[in-house]
Amino acid sequence: MKILVINGPNLNMLGVREPEIYGSLTYDDLVKFIEETAGSLGIDVDIFQSNSEGEIIDKIQGVDAIDGILINAGGYTHTSVAIRDALLTISLPVVEVHLSNIFSREDFRRHSFISDIAVGVITGFGEEGYRMGLIALKKIVGKK
Amino acid sequence: MKILVINGPNLNMLGVREPEIYGSLTYDDLVKFIEETAGSLGIDVDIFQSNSEGEIIDKIQGVDAIDGILINAGGYTHTSVAIRDALLTISLPVVEVHLSNIFSREDFRRHSFISDIAVGVITGFGEEGYRMGLIALKKIVGKK
Amino acid sequence: MKILVINGPNLNMLGVREPEIYGSLTYDDLVKFIEETAGSLGIDVDIFQSNSEGEIIDKIQGVDAIDGILINAGGYTHTSVAIRDALLTISLPVVEVHLSNIFSREDFRRHSFISDIAVGVITGFGEEGYRMGLIALKKIVGKK
Amino acid sequence: MKILVINGPNLNMLGVREPEIYGSLTYDDLVKFIEETAGSLGIDVDIFQSNSEGEIIDKIQGVDAIDGILINAGGYTHTSVAIRDALLTISLPVVEVHLSNIFSREDFRRHSFISDIAVGVITGFGEEGYRMGLIALKKIVGKK
Amino acid sequence: MKILVINGPNLNMLGVREPEIYGSLTYDDLVKFIEETAGSLGIDVDIFQSNSEGEIIDKIQGVDAIDGILINAGGYTHTSVAIRDALLTISLPVVEVHLSNIFSREDFRRHSFISDIAVGVITGFGEEGYRMGLIALKKIVGKK
Amino acid sequence: MKILVINGPNLNMLGVREPEIYGSLTYDDLVKFIEETAGSLGIDVDIFQSNSEGEIIDKIQGVDAIDGILINAGGYTHTSVAIRDALLTISLPVVEVHLSNIFSREDFRRHSFISDIAVGVITGFGEEGYRMGLIALKKIVGKK
Amino acid sequence: MKILVINGPNLNMLGVREPEIYGSLTYDDLVKFIEETAGSLGIDVDIFQSNSEGEIIDKIQGVDAIDGILINAGGYTHTSVAIRDALLTISLPVVEVHLSNIFSREDFRRHSFISDIAVGVITGFGEEGYRMGLIALKKIVGKK
Amino acid sequence: MKILVINGPNLNMLGVREPEIYGSLTYDDLVKFIEETAGSLGIDVDIFQSNSEGEIIDKIQGVDAIDGILINAGGYTHTSVAIRDALLTISLPVVEVHLSNIFSREDFRRHSFISDIAVGVITGFGEEGYRMGLIALKKIVGKK
Amino acid sequence: MKILVINGPNLNMLGVREPEIYGSLTYDDLVKFIEETAGSLGIDVDIFQSNSEGEIIDKIQGVDAIDGILINAGGYTHTSVAIRDALLTISLPVVEVHLSNIFSREDFRRHSFISDIAVGVITGFGEEGYRMGLIALKKIVGKK
Amino acid sequence: MKILVINGPNLNMLGVREPEIYGSLTYDDLVKFIEETAGSLGIDVDIFQSNSEGEIIDKIQGVDAIDGILINAGGYTHTSVAIRDALLTISLPVVEVHLSNIFSREDFRRHSFISDIAVGVITGFGEEGYRMGLIALKKIVGKK
Amino acid sequence: MKILVINGPNLNMLGVREPEIYGSLTYDDLVKFIEETAGSLGIDVDIFQSNSEGEIIDKIQGVDAIDGILINAGGYTHTSVAIRDALLTISLPVVEVHLSNIFSREDFRRHSFISDIAVGVITGFGEEGYRMGLIALKKIVGKK
Amino acid sequence: MKILVINGPNLNMLGVREPEIYGSLTYDDLVKFIEETAGSLGIDVDIFQSNSEGEIIDKIQGVDAIDGILINAGGYTHTSVAIRDALLTISLPVVEVHLSNIFSREDFRRHSFISDIAVGVITGFGEEGYRMGLIALKKIVGKK
Repeated sequence: MKILVINGPNLNMLGVREPEIYGSLTYDDLVKFIEETAGSLGIDVDIFQSNSEGEIIDKIQGVDAIDGILINAGGYTHTSVAIRDALLTISLPVVEVHLSNIFSREDFRRHSFISDIAVGVITGFGEEGYRMGLIALKKIVGKK
Repeated sequence: MKILVINGPNLNMLGVREPEIYGSLTYDDLVKFIEETAGSLGIDVDIFQSNSEGEIIDKIQGVDAIDGILINAGGYTHTSVAIRDALLTISLPVVEVHLSNIFSREDFRRHSFISDIAVGVITGFGEEGYRMGLIALKKIVGKK
Repeated sequence: MKILVINGPNLNMLGVREPEIYGSLTYDDLVKFIEETAGSLGIDVDIFQSNSEGEIIDKIQGVDAIDGILINAGGYTHTSVAIRDALLTISLPVVEVHLSNIFSREDFRRHSFISDIAVGVITGFGEEGYRMGLIALKKIVGKK
Repeated sequence: MKILVINGPNLNMLGVREPEIYGSLTYDDLVKFIEETAGSLGIDVDIFQSNSEGEIIDKIQGVDAIDGILINAGGYTHTSVAIRDALLTISLPVVEVHLSNIFSREDFRRHSFISDIAVGVITGFGEEGYRMGLIALKKIVGKK
Repeated sequence: MKILVINGPNLNMLGVREPEIYGSLTYDDLVKFIEETAGSLGIDVDIFQSNSEGEIIDKIQGVDAIDGILINAGGYTHTSVAIRDALLTISLPVVEVHLSNIFSREDFRRHSFISDIAVGVITGFGEEGYRMGLIALKKIVGKK
Repeated sequence: MKILVINGPNLNMLGVREPEIYGSLTYDDLVKFIEETAGSLGIDVDIFQSNSEGEIIDKIQGVDAIDGILINAGGYTHTSVAIRDALLTISLPVVEVHLSNIFSREDFRRHSFISDIAVGVITGFGEEGYRMGLIALKKIVGKK
Repeated sequence: MKILVINGPNLNMLGVREPEIYGSLTYDDLVKFIEETAGSLGIDVDIFQSNSEGEIIDKIQGVDAIDGILINAGGYTHTSVAIRDALLTISLPVVEVHLSNIFSREDFRRHSFISDIAVGVITGFGEEGYRMGLIALKKIVGKK
Repeated sequence: MKILVINGPNLNMLGVREPEIYGSLTYDDLVKFIEETAGSLGIDVDIFQSNSEGEIIDKIQGVDAIDGILINAGGYTHTSVAIRDALLTISLPVVEVHLSNIFSREDFRRHSFISDIAVGVITGFGEEGYRMGLIALKKIVGKK
Repeated sequence: MKILVINGPNLNMLGVREPEIYGSLTYDDLVKFIEETAGSLGIDVDIFQSNSEGEIIDKIQGVDAIDGILINAGGYTHTSVAIRDALLTISLPVVEVHLSNIFSREDFRRHSFISDIAVGVITGFGEEGYRMGLIALKKIVGKK
Repeated sequence: MKILVINGPNLNMLGVREPEIYGSLTYDDLVKFIEETAGSLGIDVDIFQSNSEGEIIDKIQGVDAIDGILINAGGYTHTSVAIRDALLTISLPVVEVHLSNIFSREDFRRHSFISDIAVGVITGFGEEGYRMGLIALKKIVGKK
Repeated sequence: MKILVINGPNLNMLGVREPEIYGSLTYDDLVKFIEETAGSLGIDVDIFQSNSEGEIIDKIQGVDAIDGILINAGGYTHTSVAIRDALLTISLPVVEVHLSNIFSREDFRRHSFISDIAVGVITGFGEEGYRMGLIALKKIVGKK
Repeated sequence: MKILVINGPNLNMLGVREPEIYGSLTYDDLVKFIEETAGSLGIDVDIFQSNSEGEIIDKIQGVDAIDGILINAGGYTHTSVAIRDALLTISLPVVEVHLSNIFSREDFRRHSFISDIAVGVITGFGEEGYRMGLIALKKIVGKK
């Protein structure tokens, strides 16, 4: 089983950005956490980060031998119809994850263009959300 | 560690209601699943279900020696300021969970009076969401 | 054929409340009217009134050997997702009825959480609306 | 007692249009149903259908020796201030009826320019709604 | 100088309709008032009334040797883009008039599809508004 | 018969301001026009102009032996609840007038806090609107 | 003179909940304060608290030999049409009170379903608001 | 293959109306253009124009041996639920066309009651849009 | 202890204005009532009334040896950001009072620019509201 | 004559994505169709596809010896002010095309940032829309 | 070159008001800063402050031998159509300035009635914004 | 002191695009102007332009030894949460600048995702705005 993990804009700045919201975890820490968690779950992961909406779409379109997608689209969550459309072009289960609780921040973060086409959404649990997303995808893929 | 699990209105009808949305899991199955999952995580659970907004508030107010709350407020999620206020009266971490993906259903389910005061939200993963919520609460409580 | 008739909050105060809107009919008069009308139509009725959202949900969930529901949810019509969900959990035809014409009162009474999941709606005809609802349900149940 | 029954645009196409919504009843069937029902209720009916907003207004203005109006204004329900005004010019009780449940269709069908000036509204019961409307008008006219 | 006076739906019912709003003036009284007023101002008038949106458009399109239009579009004021478009097709000054004060009635009467393309609007002065409109048109046409 | 004519902010700048909208008429011209028109109608006028919301309120409150008010509240039309309230404190007929057609300008000019409490509104006819307003007030006062 | 004092959901948790908003006053303190204040004003009070919307409605319906109601409906203030309706069923003066200033909190607290049917509203003065409400009710009842 | 071409209100005034928007093409020119274009495409056309909403509905209902409809509903595009309903009553492909670009005009022209039930929409290309519509309908009908 | 009492536009017209809303109390009566009430509470009052937004701001800015402000800003309540800002410039407790219940009048009176920066709001109790406001301010100032 | 054809995000996935909406046409099929159609119309085409908003802007800015643009901006249609601005920077006619009917899909697809600055819009006709767009551009460019 | 500098309500309270937003600069400091800055730029300044909307309008109308206006309308920025109109009556370049960043404060401060008729807007730079505005006006006036 | 100057999409087309809005200044002119201005202020500048949202984010993230950012995000101003988030990840003062006055253009340009997190905003002064922004940043950085 192989999962594509997509991290959108500014997630590479983790540990730098707004520590009172995201804590001191760095992006390298997050990558290591995802890899180790996936390993312990028996899941292969392809972890991808980009600040570019177009590159994220390219990556989604290029999936090969992938069983599901775990996506934290960052700021594009709230503005990108194009990423939504890319996720619709491939017939794979999608899980949306956010490190912080997007519902307790600015109003414009309450709307996601991904949520209604995802299997489910996990928000507010920091890196732990990625573990939860991988567990969920494992179950979902396993059921098919 | 002890977690109060609150299931709101109509969750007792699981397995009866809209199987194309919630699957064939019955409420008894769900309770058993939560108990077993909690057991394997070393968590004590107090599982409570009610169709009454007032009883849910009473239950929240009556917490005793509880470390956190996992709540699926069902239809009250979208309409109850009073349950929100009850959760605010106690200083415990709250995790919001929904069996189905509330973002892919009617528009009025997109708003929750609980989300912005919860630590985080898990939606769309069926009973698996409860496991994810218990794991998350264990981490959160453990950090304190 | 057996029909559950649900009367929501404050309907027990009929004859007391705003007589210029509802007339002098008392709740006992209404119950008698429904029973006699049902009798003459060859329908068994179970008439239930409660001021509690939770109790109305409990009653709906507890239906047994019932062929349809005639509901006047009173003030909960406009605010209760949970009653809507309860009606969705059971696979029975629902008819919504209101004594007064909810469209000629305050703006917030123009929206009902029940209308779009009911077979139909009858509003503005006083107790006569219950007779109309029973006749409609008889036809609907008969067609099945 | 004489009732004017007004059927608005496209009702003459019944049986042709969207059978999954309106069933196989034709307009001739509907007319016959109304006439027979009225007959059995001891009511004289003048049944009028037009696709023209202006003709419907002309008809309403021309009422003579009429005791009440049963109106299904079809698409004009949601857009015609002029028909509303016509109904206001005559001092007769008006009952609004719809074959399908307008609350479970497109959002723009949720608003009616007639509902708040009618005695009451009946929606979702097919031709049976006309019977219910005639019975209601008989009671209302009788009370005067 | 010749002015086309257009009276929209239900104005022919004046004296019948809502006397507390429009007074006891009948449509014949209004026509006579307009004719006499126009006469005293040295204006020829072509007074037209119809309940049909299409006929009003036909009339506007058919103007011949007309110097301006005084229009009370009744209920179509608030709903007709087509009458607006008809007024735009001819290069004549338009004055909008209403018998009652549309700003002190239902909210939906606050918007007119004609006001912003008219030279001006007169509302609330009963038949006197027609006199004011004729005087205004005389000035406007005179200035050209 | 005596009428108070109130001209709000910036009307004293007539002839200076936006000539493409208001023409070359100066405020002195307007005053002379109103006085002469009033004279020919046998009406006494008290013409008042102020840029101050408070002074306009003071003036309205101070009316003495006045039979009606003709008001062009300028920019305060769209923002002043206090002037509305002042007009409500005195039991005199009010006519609202605007030189330009407020409906064909910025959107925020479409709403007036005076319109619904006035007898009527005249907009778009330049100084001629004042004549129309005086004629209207003469009729209205005469009827009392 | 006897006043029914209704305290809605979560008010029993006073002193526990959000002390930065409500201070350290406990519910028992509040009850004592109301009783003593009422005593000194020569008013009999029946103080009722419930977390249940239905029980609050039951209590309102059951008033007997009561001269007025002082209500702090807590979270139900913003969501309950049913409590509004219950207050309408009885012909007694109602005063709405809130401990905190609901206008300086979340936006959804700005709307109350009770305010427009109450005699008046007192918000933001802590327990002192109850004293003010009792004084006001004494005057209002005394005037009848 | 036979196509019904419907031209709504004011299209008969082409060449007269707002030449800066629609150019100097007259309605006769448009009819000739459609006939010649249809001829060259091997399509029979029935070209219909009316200013009356009701007549347009009558025409749609009366289709006989027609394979598709090309409709420019003019001002009714934005206001007519009844024409929408008429198009729904017949099972034929519909193409919506507009001479001008409705998206670069007044805001209220941005919404069409026809677009979402049409196969497609063509706007902004003058008479050329009709050719495009006929070509499109030829393809669509040919595929069936 | 000294309190500045500010009465906004039109309050000087009390007893004249809309007696069905405000009763027969005159402004002089109100001033006397406030003075006597303050006297009995041991509070010095500076009572100020103005119809001018600017003068009210000047007065607020000029406070000297004042312990709190009781303000009924009349119509400016709903429109004045500048008065709000003036109240923010001084570090004194503010209580907002209204004679009538602003929540049961026009919709635009439901919003106040003062409420969220005041300690609390009292509305609907006539002159009694001033007494309540003075009592409240005495407590608030006393606590400091 | 040379036309730049821009295909936005995910159009390269045609034939893969949602075949029930877009059919089985692949992107290579679409390119071939455009090239052949253009050839038969005597038009040179430069066909460009990108998933990147920035690259689309770069391409638009880089036009050289181009007579017009045919653009299907995909998901960027609804979100990109920057592409709109790029189209504004060059003085060339723009035609907007969509394969599916964007008006019968999600609500957020009803708004386009391109429509009001394009000559016209073609939506819902699959690849045929590109032919229609090329024909239209040929006419438009020819007229210049 | 002479510039009129207008400071609206409460700016005279600078140094007193909300120091965490505006800093410790007093109004005298601001005046001195503007004078010195203007002096060093070779600009004559007429600095005016008022809390009265009417006086600000009077001042704008009275401009004489002025080349431009730098305005900080304070709270009137968001509510005054009348000041907007006054600025429109004179044909001078206007620059809008704010000490604090109005976009990071309450939502109602996001809208200005001046911005769209000004040459430009400067917000958030404290007294430095006035220097920037003077420099900008010097350039703008110099270009004429 | 070193400032990063970011110019977003289409700014490289200056002098080409809409000269009636932006004037004849080319992008090279703008760069030279910024460099010279910065030089004269003793500021080092790193001037960056890109049409790509992702590249702008990359650039912001890569700041090194930079004291502040002057950003004209062009069309991304109104749509990019991701650029906002990038600016939040670095702890540097940000000044937002626009060449044209965004408040006097299309409505959607009135909202910026950057304004509320910037120190301040400068809009409408052409290249002069950049000078003003550099001066402001020099002051802001100097104060730290």
